[in-house]
Amino acid sequence: MTPPKLSLAAFKRYLPILEWSRSYDRDTLTSDLVAAVIVTIMLIPQSLAYALLAGLPAEMGLYASILPLVAYAIFGTSRALAVGPVAVVSLMTAAAIGNLGLTDPAQYALAAVTLAFISGAILTVMGVFHLGFLANFLSHPVIAGFITASGVLIASSQLKHLLGVEAHGHTLFTIWGDLFAHQHLVNPITLTIGVLTTAFLFWVRKGLKPLLLATGMKPRLADILAKAGPVAAVVVTTLAVWIFDLENKGVAIVGAVPMGLPPLTAPSFSWDLWSQLFISAVLISIIGFVESVSVAQTLAAKKRQRILPDQELIGLGTSNIAAAVTGGYPVTGGFARSVVNFDAGAETPAAGAFTAVGILLAALLLTPLLFFLPKATLAATIIVAVLSLVDFSILTKAWGYSRVDFAAVAATIFLTLGFGVEMGVSAGVVLSIALHLFKTSRPHVAEVGLVPGTQHFRNIHRHNVETAPHLVTLRIDESLYFANARFLEDYVYNRISCDEPIKHVVLMCSAVNEIDMSALESLEAINQRLGELGISLHLSEVKGPVMDRLQRSHFLDELTGQVYLSQYDAWRVLTRPDAVDSPEAAQ
Amino acid sequence: MTPPKLSLAAFKRYLPILEWSRSYDRDTLTSDLVAAVIVTIMLIPQSLAYALLAGLPAEMGLYASILPLVAYAIFGTSRALAVGPVAVVSLMTAAAIGNLGLTDPAQYALAAVTLAFISGAILTVMGVFHLGFLANFLSHPVIAGFITASGVLIASSQLKHLLGVEAHGHTLFTIWGDLFAHQHLVNPITLTIGVLTTAFLFWVRKGLKPLLLATGMKPRLADILAKAGPVAAVVVTTLAVWIFDLENKGVAIVGAVPMGLPPLTAPSFSWDLWSQLFISAVLISIIGFVESVSVAQTLAAKKRQRILPDQELIGLGTSNIAAAVTGGYPVTGGFARSVVNFDAGAETPAAGAFTAVGILLAALLLTPLLFFLPKATLAATIIVAVLSLVDFSILTKAWGYSRVDFAAVAATIFLTLGFGVEMGVSAGVVLSIALHLFKTSRPHVAEVGLVPGTQHFRNIHRHNVETAPHLVTLRIDESLYFANARFLEDYVYNRISCDEPIKHVVLMCSAVNEIDMSALESLEAINQRLGELGISLHLSEVKGPVMDRLQRSHFLDELTGQVYLSQYDAWRVLTRPDAVDSPEAAQ
Repeated sequence: MTPPKLSLAAFKRYLPILEWSRSYDRDTLTSDLVAAVIVTIMLIPQSLAYALLAGLPAEMGLYASILPLVAYAIFGTSRALAVGPVAVVSLMTAAAIGNLGLTDPAQYALAAVTLAFISGAILTVMGVFHLGFLANFLSHPVIAGFITASGVLIASSQLKHLLGVEAHGHTLFTIWGDLFAHQHLVNPITLTIGVLTTAFLFWVRKGLKPLLLATGMKPRLADILAKAGPVAAVVVTTLAVWIFDLENKGVAIVGAVPMGLPPLTAPSFSWDLWSQLFISAVLISIIGFVESVSVAQTLAAKKRQRILPDQELIGLGTSNIAAAVTGGYPVTGGFARSVVNFDAGAETPAAGAFTAVGILLAALLLTPLLFFLPKATLAATIIVAVLSLVDFSILTKAWGYSRVDFAAVAATIFLTLGFGVEMGVSAGVVLSIALHLFKTSRPHVAEVGLVPGTQHFRNIHRHNVETAPHLVTLRIDESLYFANARFLEDYVYNRISCDEPIKHVVLMCSAVNEIDMSALESLEAINQRLGELGISLHLSEVKGPVMDRLQRSHFLDELTGQVYLSQYDAWRVLTRPDAVDSPEAAQ
Repeated sequence: MTPPKLSLAAFKRYLPILEWSRSYDRDTLTSDLVAAVIVTIMLIPQSLAYALLAGLPAEMGLYASILPLVAYAIFGTSRALAVGPVAVVSLMTAAAIGNLGLTDPAQYALAAVTLAFISGAILTVMGVFHLGFLANFLSHPVIAGFITASGVLIASSQLKHLLGVEAHGHTLFTIWGDLFAHQHLVNPITLTIGVLTTAFLFWVRKGLKPLLLATGMKPRLADILAKAGPVAAVVVTTLAVWIFDLENKGVAIVGAVPMGLPPLTAPSFSWDLWSQLFISAVLISIIGFVESVSVAQTLAAKKRQRILPDQELIGLGTSNIAAAVTGGYPVTGGFARSVVNFDAGAETPAAGAFTAVGILLAALLLTPLLFFLPKATLAATIIVAVLSLVDFSILTKAWGYSRVDFAAVAATIFLTLGFGVEMGVSAGVVLSIALHLFKTSRPHVAEVGLVPGTQHFRNIHRHNVETAPHLVTLRIDESLYFANARFLEDYVYNRISCDEPIKHVVLMCSAVNEIDMSALESLEAINQRLGELGISLHLSEVKGPVMDRLQRSHFLDELTGQVYLSQYDAWRVLTRPDAVDSPEAAQ
């Protein structure tokens, strides 16, 4: 949490480009350029489609794919991450801005730009103050559940474009409710375009490449052609609408997309808007960062490279700020396009900058051609892309491993589908933490005995061990802190109330990593209560840091028994004949 | 969390009165009656004063001290707890209702009744579903800090009555700001009454009893007279106002207090009001329960009795519902009056019921006499009572023991004083949990070696131990879960990147009480990465419950090394000469 020092090293830390650009050569350039071409082809329809998903004009998707990529190339540490608009963050943007109840499209766009700016500022500040670890509080199963549920929500939200009807809402029930309510209005031509495009894209995904290879085409070319499937769909359906004048038959089209450079924009600094968007921006930042960093780490591991999570925050933060000043909306590193970038041979973040040039050319030259592009085609692109995110097997995997993890996943999926993305991801975080606290508030306590012939102690109920009637050894399998302090008191009192001849109670602390003040007070209470009953309290295997802390309190002076370095020492002393009758002899 | 079974035993569980009333005899009756008289004398001025503190008409304090005491006598488990209006809960009531911005006194009173009802319902439901453990999430130091800060706030809030000026607000700054702004309006007569009464009450508290004993009075009588100090102050100042017509000289008085039985009231069931009060009711319930249960446990321990926290919730819950239907406001078990009740010899909850009769008689007969009672007298009563709650030594104690505990206490005190009770207690809970999570997210990891001549392993930096160059043993001093899973990965990768000849890494899991799904994925990643580098990963001292869970996953099949029952077994096998060069030999 220490703010950074100002030095040359610190300066370099914040600019990873200084490192990789020194060894940049012609081979690297070629690799990066090839990767950039492939990613550009993939990104053009995706950018338009995700802007649509976010409820924004199509060109904002293009704008979000230009300067942000350059910013990431300068500040990011991953060699292969491809930044831009992604499905889940677009859905979260739609949900965040949808909450504001805006009707004026200009206000809506301003809110999106502002959201990108707040999100970028949050990410950058987190990076500068090394707060990347905060993302760890999202457990893996919760993320998996959230992404799956978001995929279902996104696919559902796009059905309206496939059917050619109106549908609103950010939950599964409102979306499907609207779809059913409007089913009589389905436009058959739109539906035909949508279904055919979806089927075509699924086929391109699975069937095209093997077919091209079978014709003797080179693998590389086959790969590029397969990636160009969505572009082909865009071209064919746009031509169809134009030629057959389908617009006048009720097919919704993208319409006029402005041609030219991304505009310079400024976020709003209205206090009202910021306070309404702030929580959403936090959630978008965290989800965007988690998604991005896990992709970056997976790809880096394959080439034995390292990414620096805190610098990644700065990379993503500046990307979002770049989006905010050039008419874009929140961006992050996307899974599918990063894998494509990696597979296509991207060697450095420069590939991202070259992709930006490609998208810029599209914004400068191609936008008039998008006028007749049917929205159904973009919806089909989204549906095919997000269904690969949907994987309910996390539920069975979690069920088999741990009911607590399962509960967190199931609740996250249910709440995301039923109450929207913001509720889903918030509940996932809160629930993960709450369930963890609940588990640690009722710690496992094992009564242990000596494994014969060793110096090792194990649970008397799981192993065949030696015990002594006047000695109870309890191994506490949890740090002692406020949430379980009283539990320990009750446990010890219950245990000693069962047996008469107990003279010594040993708390074996090998798994106690912390004793906070609340727990210290409980230990003091236990010590006093046992003392009144003529029972000595001992500790064994207290860890160094815990012992340091206990020595700062009065507890050790008041302790009726001893602290033993090892449980075996405690056993040897307390099972001597003279320890049976007089607790004092053991001291 | 299981709902209760319907059976005779369950019925008895919910009615502790059935148990203690069976052995009720004449001796017990006498003890209870004496205690009831003393508590009644103490409770009459306190009830009036705390109602004033809550911003309510004085009679509501009396009403809150009648039926709630009877309800607790039936449903409570503590033999000595005295229920009624208390200072901190009264302040929280004032803060909760103050937030609503009501101006009509009738609406204000209705909100108080509703708050008692919601709070009672929450407590009762928590009791029925055994959710008493939730109160454990308030750490002891946070509670201590909160009570101290509340005492300061309460005393400050009463200064306006001593000075005879108007002052509003629920934070230290707004209260003192108002007092300074109105200092020119100070009423000298009110101030004289207030200061003299405060001085008198402090003297009664410390000096009266020794004086009476010195005159040869019996200790019991001296005790009762000392407890009657506030009553004497009430009588004398009321008479002074009446005789010297001080009301017309600007001394604020209590005024008309209705005479008669408590009214039957019904809480509001307006959705708006409930949603505005709900969070406050939760906080009041938790603070009230924590305060009450800790008093009850302290007193029960002195007589080797037990209280049942979940039944206490039901006792307090029904008390609050009783307050809600008889014109009262939120109540709980008070510290001072319970100690008085205990010291006066109360044997059973019947003492509380007898106290209720005493207060009922006061409501029926004495209220006209309260007309000229100056508010300054009641304020003095409150100030003297709450200053005994103020104890800033918790700060130095926490500082000495743990900086984390200190941070939680200091923040709780600061936020309570600066932003009011609700902010203070919420922040205390959140901060306790956040700091705990933060600590566990960066666990202590110790590299350990063998203590010579034993089978025991300790930190290589703290103890003189044996190690082997090709073997690294890391003892992880924390459960592995989502918040620290990635930390472990980084730690292991950094450790193995330092030394060349490492062939085996052993994770000693004696302090690992849980491995959740996120951590399992990290272990899988570590296992794979080490495997690629030709290093075997082993585990030792895995606890039973953790091992059970690992066996349900594929991790153990993929593990490149072994799982050893004890760290000593791992050491013996992995330091054999054949284990140095070939990891396989160790398997």
